[in-house]
Amino acid sequence: MSNYNSILIAVDFSEASEQVISRGLLTASQNHASTFLVHVVEHLPPIDFGYEPLSSPDWYNNEEEIIKHAEKNIIALAKKHAIPVSHARVLSGSPKHEIIQFAKDNNIDLIVIGSHGRHGLQRLLGSTAYPVLHNASCDALAVRIKE
Amino acid sequence: MSNYNSILIAVDFSEASEQVISRGLLTASQNHASTFLVHVVEHLPPIDFGYEPLSSPDWYNNEEEIIKHAEKNIIALAKKHAIPVSHARVLSGSPKHEIIQFAKDNNIDLIVIGSHGRHGLQRLLGSTAYPVLHNASCDALAVRIKE
Repeated sequence: MSNYNSILIAVDFSEASEQVISRGLLTASQNHASTFLVHVVEHLPPIDFGYEPLSSPDWYNNEEEIIKHAEKNIIALAKKHAIPVSHARVLSGSPKHEIIQFAKDNNIDLIVIGSHGRHGLQRLLGSTAYPVLHNASCDALAVRIKE
Repeated sequence: MSNYNSILIAVDFSEASEQVISRGLLTASQNHASTFLVHVVEHLPPIDFGYEPLSSPDWYNNEEEIIKHAEKNIIALAKKHAIPVSHARVLSGSPKHEIIQFAKDNNIDLIVIGSHGRHGLQRLLGSTAYPVLHNASCDALAVRIKE
């Protein structure tokens, strides 16, 4: 059994991301692995303007703006944690699909991802960790978020 | 972020267990953690003897025998991998429930478990990794079994 070579840390920019990054970086250091930091901007559901023309905020359908904002965030996060900026990426689409595809394309052998609790809002929001684990072709470390 | 202290490696005695144990032991060594090796004997569904009296093998309802056999296996596996025999345990019940409960009772901070592929028989057999990840109160490392 050999060390991991390339670790992908998936973050959602919540406070919990710090816990996921810390565990990912410690694991990378223990394995002498390179690290990628990835955030996925989810596609937004279309708004029915005929039905509710006044309630959609300006930025809502401007995916370009959202991605730009996310790119600023991921670069700041990478710098804060001494991850090379070239390894900080924003993807867009389904988090599960994008994370799994990125892992394949970049020969990732470990995905580190936050796993939310069973109760309250975090459960309602769902967890990306679950489908990633089930479908990834590499190992996956689910970091239990301390609530 | 601190190292893991206590790692639980869950095995099903399939060939794949060797991959899970190797990754678990490497992770334990990187974290200077203690290691537990656990196998869960699932409760067997009752056979309807009125319906099919000749087809149930002798050992089928003898859970005691099955557990004894599993205990021999887990001890052999522990010795093979230099895990203390006192840390090799057979539990019985639902794998998900028993693994999660054992982790709580023994202050485990990482569960290492095999994660089977999406296709073929392994998918049909289901995966314990998925519900363990979703319900454990500690981190979980799903080791993707190479088929």
